[in-house]
Amino acid sequence: MTGTAAIIGGGVIGGGWVARFLQNGWDVRIFDPDPEAERKIDAVLANARRAVPGLTNFPMPEEGRLTWHDTIAEAVTGADWVQESVPERLDLKQKVLAEVEAACGDAIIGSSTSGFKPSELQAGRAKPGQIVVTHPFNPVYLLPLVELVTTGENPVDLIERAKSVLAGLTMYPLHLTREIDAHVADRLLEAVWREALWLVNDGIATTEEIDEAIRMGFGLRWAQMGLFETYRIAGGEAGMRHFLSQFGPALEWPWTKLMDVPEYNDALVDRIASQSDAQSGKHSIRELERMRDGNLVSILRGLKYHGNGAGALLRDWDARRRAETEPGRRIEDTTDLSTPLLTVSRMVPRDWTDFNGHLTEPRYHELFASGTASFMHKIGCDEVYIAGGRSYFTAESHMRHLAEVHEGDRIEVRTQMLVGEGRKLHLFHSMERDGKQVATGEHFMLHVDLATRKPCPAEGRVAENLARVASGHDGLPYPKGAGLSIHHRPARPAD
Amino acid sequence: MTGTAAIIGGGVIGGGWVARFLQNGWDVRIFDPDPEAERKIDAVLANARRAVPGLTNFPMPEEGRLTWHDTIAEAVTGADWVQESVPERLDLKQKVLAEVEAACGDAIIGSSTSGFKPSELQAGRAKPGQIVVTHPFNPVYLLPLVELVTTGENPVDLIERAKSVLAGLTMYPLHLTREIDAHVADRLLEAVWREALWLVNDGIATTEEIDEAIRMGFGLRWAQMGLFETYRIAGGEAGMRHFLSQFGPALEWPWTKLMDVPEYNDALVDRIASQSDAQSGKHSIRELERMRDGNLVSILRGLKYHGNGAGALLRDWDARRRAETEPGRRIEDTTDLSTPLLTVSRMVPRDWTDFNGHLTEPRYHELFASGTASFMHKIGCDEVYIAGGRSYFTAESHMRHLAEVHEGDRIEVRTQMLVGEGRKLHLFHSMERDGKQVATGEHFMLHVDLATRKPCPAEGRVAENLARVASGHDGLPYPKGAGLSIHHRPARPAD
Repeated sequence: MTGTAAIIGGGVIGGGWVARFLQNGWDVRIFDPDPEAERKIDAVLANARRAVPGLTNFPMPEEGRLTWHDTIAEAVTGADWVQESVPERLDLKQKVLAEVEAACGDAIIGSSTSGFKPSELQAGRAKPGQIVVTHPFNPVYLLPLVELVTTGENPVDLIERAKSVLAGLTMYPLHLTREIDAHVADRLLEAVWREALWLVNDGIATTEEIDEAIRMGFGLRWAQMGLFETYRIAGGEAGMRHFLSQFGPALEWPWTKLMDVPEYNDALVDRIASQSDAQSGKHSIRELERMRDGNLVSILRGLKYHGNGAGALLRDWDARRRAETEPGRRIEDTTDLSTPLLTVSRMVPRDWTDFNGHLTEPRYHELFASGTASFMHKIGCDEVYIAGGRSYFTAESHMRHLAEVHEGDRIEVRTQMLVGEGRKLHLFHSMERDGKQVATGEHFMLHVDLATRKPCPAEGRVAENLARVASGHDGLPYPKGAGLSIHHRPARPAD
Repeated sequence: MTGTAAIIGGGVIGGGWVARFLQNGWDVRIFDPDPEAERKIDAVLANARRAVPGLTNFPMPEEGRLTWHDTIAEAVTGADWVQESVPERLDLKQKVLAEVEAACGDAIIGSSTSGFKPSELQAGRAKPGQIVVTHPFNPVYLLPLVELVTTGENPVDLIERAKSVLAGLTMYPLHLTREIDAHVADRLLEAVWREALWLVNDGIATTEEIDEAIRMGFGLRWAQMGLFETYRIAGGEAGMRHFLSQFGPALEWPWTKLMDVPEYNDALVDRIASQSDAQSGKHSIRELERMRDGNLVSILRGLKYHGNGAGALLRDWDARRRAETEPGRRIEDTTDLSTPLLTVSRMVPRDWTDFNGHLTEPRYHELFASGTASFMHKIGCDEVYIAGGRSYFTAESHMRHLAEVHEGDRIEVRTQMLVGEGRKLHLFHSMERDGKQVATGEHFMLHVDLATRKPCPAEGRVAENLARVASGHDGLPYPKGAGLSIHHRPARPAD
């Protein structure tokens, strides 16, 4: 489902809505009197166009048409959805909403307000039933949450239409029917904000220390499960009631002395425990733990790619693991070159497997690429050599899958050099599990000048080390499976 | 660096410490009088052994030796580190610490307490200087944060030793020198907990709604940046001071009426803005936005693999994108079979590229595997067919890399069937950017019986569709680059 959206007020949030609608194929009409608005929205759109297509394995929808308008009336005419994202002042929002409703037909009018109740926005309006709160989170083009807050003024079919539009934008409409100041998410954020200000104000922690306390710890948990499901797990096998019995009393501890807290009684415990059962009871604690851990490992590996937050620690860990498992194994120090080199030894993570539970094709390739990377490190084609303007690019590869590989399998790759001189490098990797070959990978690489991107001969220590490897590997038998082409398969007896 | 750790008290937290030390090569000595302790710790260890090796590309350290002990004195004798994780009662902790210090030599004594100050644990002890708070977060084997809280009693060299041990466990020691009840992270968690209890108590939201408000929104942000860095970005080009000027007044809004808040004055604004500059000032807002978005895309794609939280929405989006881009393109409905089939059209995400900024080898393979998956879908080898016990397994593949591919490139894959009958399927993929071939992938697959994992002929609709494709593709010229082997390269004129 697509349509036409009118965005009233640009800025970070309005610009995010522009991107969210456009990238889902909606036409977008913008009103924003700020002379800088176009530049600001272009910047948000550039970010969105860079990020969002990475989320899908399929072609993005064709972007809708973006137009700018000089008046609210012109912008909202013919729109199916109007999104108001002007500054957080009730008088200003009411003035804007009055102009919107005068020209908008039967459009849904969503307000991005983080603080005001929908009844405050509807009061005095001609079309109160069309006005709802649709509060998104920055960056709007990536985060799915939208708090959809409605009142008794809003017809059921309009609410359903709003949910359907938001879901069609791959957002998550959290429908709240009991309106309060700041809705739900910002209540939680305000609570953290107040506490964080105290910590900074009292000199207990700096902004950076508080941020690390979040992203190295509970922030990772909250990307994939919320507060209550996390605590349900923390309760262990005894579940939510046990957790509450342990944690509940904390409500009366000294640091709550300045806080008004709800009375901790059986009714509240019953309510929480039964809501938690309804939410998570379909999974055992053990299942929830494994879901959580699977999510966390994938999140942490994603952060490792970028080297940010907890990912920076994991990069360091890999560097230490490399140093601890590879010292004395650089070619100069390797005494036994009469056998293929051990280049990979690792476990198959869960998220490398597909719905059949076995290693996906590209991950075989990743294991072989790790073997190649390790070989490069051994011969001295390392960060320093590459910084000097030389590297290897892979030109061709050939893989055979001989047995299924599963989550948790311990895999080793042993690497034989078939050719390694001048600009050519031809490697043959044997992937093994418990000493049995499960796959082979054959890779042909060219040594390149990174300035020209053209092949050139290997140099210095790398060239010397290739000669050392050749002195041993040239005497090895040509490995079974090397040099084959798929073209030849029909003639092979195995078929 | 490894050594011997004594774990006093199992449970979820103690068990997590057991795993963290063991998996980093430490010997671990456990004391826990609970008759269920061994079973509980075995369960935590099983989780850790399943999850943690997925975080590194290198071999895990060999696990240390795990032993059980009947007394605290026996467990701590000879230990380099003693970790106390008994229930959160000060009298109990003091009793345990007295037994520990009597037998532990010069070990560091860390307490997992979430609430007590180190001075409360040190009071009345014989070795107060060895006692510190080392408060971890569940699951301890995955989350890096440890709050290391010390007092003036702790010698500098012991504090440095503690940091070094924790960093060696790939944890993040957040050193706090001004002790308060509940340290820092749990102050923030308590604040959220109180607010969440109010929301449940007042019937504003259920536990599930609160959890979704977290994991669909700010929880994703907090996995990779904390509160202040996120808000610095929200301030846009004007930065932290601008954000504070917008958000600061919220401290005086109605929902803070029951809360004691710090005075919002110039001194506090200056402190926050200058700490934020020190923390994040080395990056422009635009750079921070792109770091954030890169992290978020990787996190979201990780969650998509598991189908949890925001990842469930992205799975649905992919399904919708498939339906919208592939209808009428199933083989039965395809009128033009006289040309290779379009099987992939997508953008190259940032985290598919390496330090050279170009697509990594395994991601070429992933694009070809996507082409194969799309081909499978078109011929009717879909979820239903696979559920019926038949599928295709890849036996062999051959790739040629003809040009570099970069982040943001729009890639198309066109697929020609070379053989598709009986148990055999031989596909040739051409990867193109702007109509120019950048790589080729040739894949040989076998149709298998999923019960026996042995080859068998394709059946029914799949067999019929293969015949349809063959009727068109058999007339196409044999593609350039198919049927080659790396073995033959030296003879090819291009070399």
